[in-house]
Amino acid sequence: MIGLSSYAGVMESLMNCDEEQQPSSPLTNSWSKNQDSGKNQKPKLVGGFVLVHAGAGYHSESKAKEYKHVCKRACQRAVDQLKAGALAVEAVAAALVELEDSPFTNAGMGSNLNLSGEIECDASIMDGKSLHYGAVGAISGIKNPVLVANRLLSEAQKGKLSAGRIPPVGRGAHDWAVSHGIPPCPSEKMATKFSLSAYKRNKRKMELAEKIDTGHNQAKKRRQSSENENGSGCLDTVGAVVVDLEGNVAAAVSSGGLAMKHPGRVGQAAHYGCGCWAENACNMNPYSTAVSTSGCGEHLIRTMLARECSAAMQSEDAHQALLEAMQNKFISSPFLASEDRVLGGVIVLRCCRCVEAPPSQNIQGILVEFLWSHTTESMCVGYMSAQDSKAKTHISRLPPGTVPGQCLAIEGGVCRLMSRGE
Amino acid sequence: MIGLSSYAGVMESLMNCDEEQQPSSPLTNSWSKNQDSGKNQKPKLVGGFVLVHAGAGYHSESKAKEYKHVCKRACQRAVDQLKAGALAVEAVAAALVELEDSPFTNAGMGSNLNLSGEIECDASIMDGKSLHYGAVGAISGIKNPVLVANRLLSEAQKGKLSAGRIPPVGRGAHDWAVSHGIPPCPSEKMATKFSLSAYKRNKRKMELAEKIDTGHNQAKKRRQSSENENGSGCLDTVGAVVVDLEGNVAAAVSSGGLAMKHPGRVGQAAHYGCGCWAENACNMNPYSTAVSTSGCGEHLIRTMLARECSAAMQSEDAHQALLEAMQNKFISSPFLASEDRVLGGVIVLRCCRCVEAPPSQNIQGILVEFLWSHTTESMCVGYMSAQDSKAKTHISRLPPGTVPGQCLAIEGGVCRLMSRGE
Repeated sequence: MIGLSSYAGVMESLMNCDEEQQPSSPLTNSWSKNQDSGKNQKPKLVGGFVLVHAGAGYHSESKAKEYKHVCKRACQRAVDQLKAGALAVEAVAAALVELEDSPFTNAGMGSNLNLSGEIECDASIMDGKSLHYGAVGAISGIKNPVLVANRLLSEAQKGKLSAGRIPPVGRGAHDWAVSHGIPPCPSEKMATKFSLSAYKRNKRKMELAEKIDTGHNQAKKRRQSSENENGSGCLDTVGAVVVDLEGNVAAAVSSGGLAMKHPGRVGQAAHYGCGCWAENACNMNPYSTAVSTSGCGEHLIRTMLARECSAAMQSEDAHQALLEAMQNKFISSPFLASEDRVLGGVIVLRCCRCVEAPPSQNIQGILVEFLWSHTTESMCVGYMSAQDSKAKTHISRLPPGTVPGQCLAIEGGVCRLMSRGE
Repeated sequence: MIGLSSYAGVMESLMNCDEEQQPSSPLTNSWSKNQDSGKNQKPKLVGGFVLVHAGAGYHSESKAKEYKHVCKRACQRAVDQLKAGALAVEAVAAALVELEDSPFTNAGMGSNLNLSGEIECDASIMDGKSLHYGAVGAISGIKNPVLVANRLLSEAQKGKLSAGRIPPVGRGAHDWAVSHGIPPCPSEKMATKFSLSAYKRNKRKMELAEKIDTGHNQAKKRRQSSENENGSGCLDTVGAVVVDLEGNVAAAVSSGGLAMKHPGRVGQAAHYGCGCWAENACNMNPYSTAVSTSGCGEHLIRTMLARECSAAMQSEDAHQALLEAMQNKFISSPFLASEDRVLGGVIVLRCCRCVEAPPSQNIQGILVEFLWSHTTESMCVGYMSAQDSKAKTHISRLPPGTVPGQCLAIEGGVCRLMSRGE
């Protein structure tokens, strides 16, 4: 298959946008536009689309450039893979490696330190074609946890390894990774100046609080306050969703977990159905869907947000479907009835064969709709089509005055990929 | 509330039954029967119902008595709790402790040893009333992993501990448990003569096979054969589902994992939505449902079998709903398309307010339907109502000549609990 893809701009923008980086306005007839402008061009041998996130949480203006830059680089890595003919699952892993390697994200290098001062990471990856899944939880001493998850996925695809030998957690996962050729990386090399000083600051705060507070209520308040700090500052799990030119989708997610978490705590990034989800279209489902989540692990786990959003995206209107899923299955979920604020974000991609494609030249089109939504103060996203290789990055923010955890922002876009049957 | 309950026998039995222990035949009008026989009795201050399993796998005739006996004792423990006024979640934990303590089950004491000769256990528990959930994965050195899961659940219910401090895996889970007053138990005390000799036998087999086989295909065959051995002999995860007299449901599951598993491997018993599920009735759901699963962890995880069965049980015909769920969401699941044999079993309980209850004395009835189904060669179950305290135990087997992993057995019963409003 060969292909030509065209980025078609933002489908809809309900909430406020970062003006400086606001994506282009909706193109209601982007297909014709593309046909006009590309009339004399032959379809190129490239295709596919990637959408990444550097977390739903709080992204300070002072670091906005860095966040956007890492999203851009991650998109580029995925597109490089797609251009080289890689399938969606390989491209999504490549994007994640770039996101993990950035010291500005809470994944891989520069991850939050736990109560004991160690780094323990979670990561998972899902291939929509085979429906295989790989995950690691609370793994230490590996620079790119997503590569371990990906290796587990490919081992599962190879044969019958699955039943007894999947090592998703802790020391066992580390040993399995090293015995499969993934190099170890000392924990101290993965901590950054920033993550170490944050750890020391948090540790001092906790010790001080323990000296002062003794009553149950005060302790409870302290916990809440500590979580709020984490909640607003450090929920920067990273993730990506990809569709390749064959229409296969894949999703991945990676996280260093909450700062000062209890050792051994495993967040949504290592929970099936919670951190990422990908399913190619099949008899029952007209759309291929891929989802990656970020935010408060407990909230994302208890609502199985990745899988719920994926399932919701089978209804006709993508934007409405995601809006309702975020409202009914997340903010108003009966599983989180006792929570005042429900904190999370998703990136979503869905695609189907494009019926409007011109009948000439045996050309098939894939319609890609991509969206992001969050209840956190902000979410940083980036996206890129393999055809034009121009990354768009964006820090989405809740409108001023709205309450994080009770309101949501939702935005997205549409892109058409075109491929010629061979 | 006070109550009176009556066991109403088996609702339906499609497949072969263990004749010796076959439950009594269906009573189409059990409510009237109970009313006749109990005409002069006042409703008693007890109520609730428990269904337990000692695994879906293979239960040898030679140990049938022991399996049934432990199921009976587990039922008794849950009923003791219910009689003492405990809620469903406490009763289900009590049943699990008994199942874990038996050296004949692969949970807690006598669990399978992993590749390194250690015991690592998974367990989880879910409360249908609060929808809270607690889980531990790959935990060593704790006699009753379900108590750690239960403690995590109650900590989550108390307040805001959830966000950052849930330690579900490995060393972290062990340390958390001990710091919360759960006594450690040296791993060597948890191994039994039987589990140790099985480990040594498996280890020798593996070493021998590695010496002889070198080709990829032979290695693959060896893995498969080793899995088949595990598959037929050692999939004896344990679990229970309970409804209390207030109509609250709860579910729990506990497992030592596959023999010779890679250290750190976490099975379905620690995976949300896969090992157990419980949801009280609400606006959207007319039935309260509770499910506990057993079998090949990978198959149960990838199909999220506990949650799928729970969701399916909202349709009218309980038996038909479970049959379709096991066929369409498990045996024929697109997530297991590459598997020749899909191995697992479930116990399911659902209940709703009983409309046929007599109008006198402000009496309310709860109709409890309970079922089990499995694709493995056998599944051992037991059940008991708190009213008559008579445990029924049963080893359900696939009909002779049918293929495990491709066919299923399904059976169940109905019970009515009666409570008087106060």
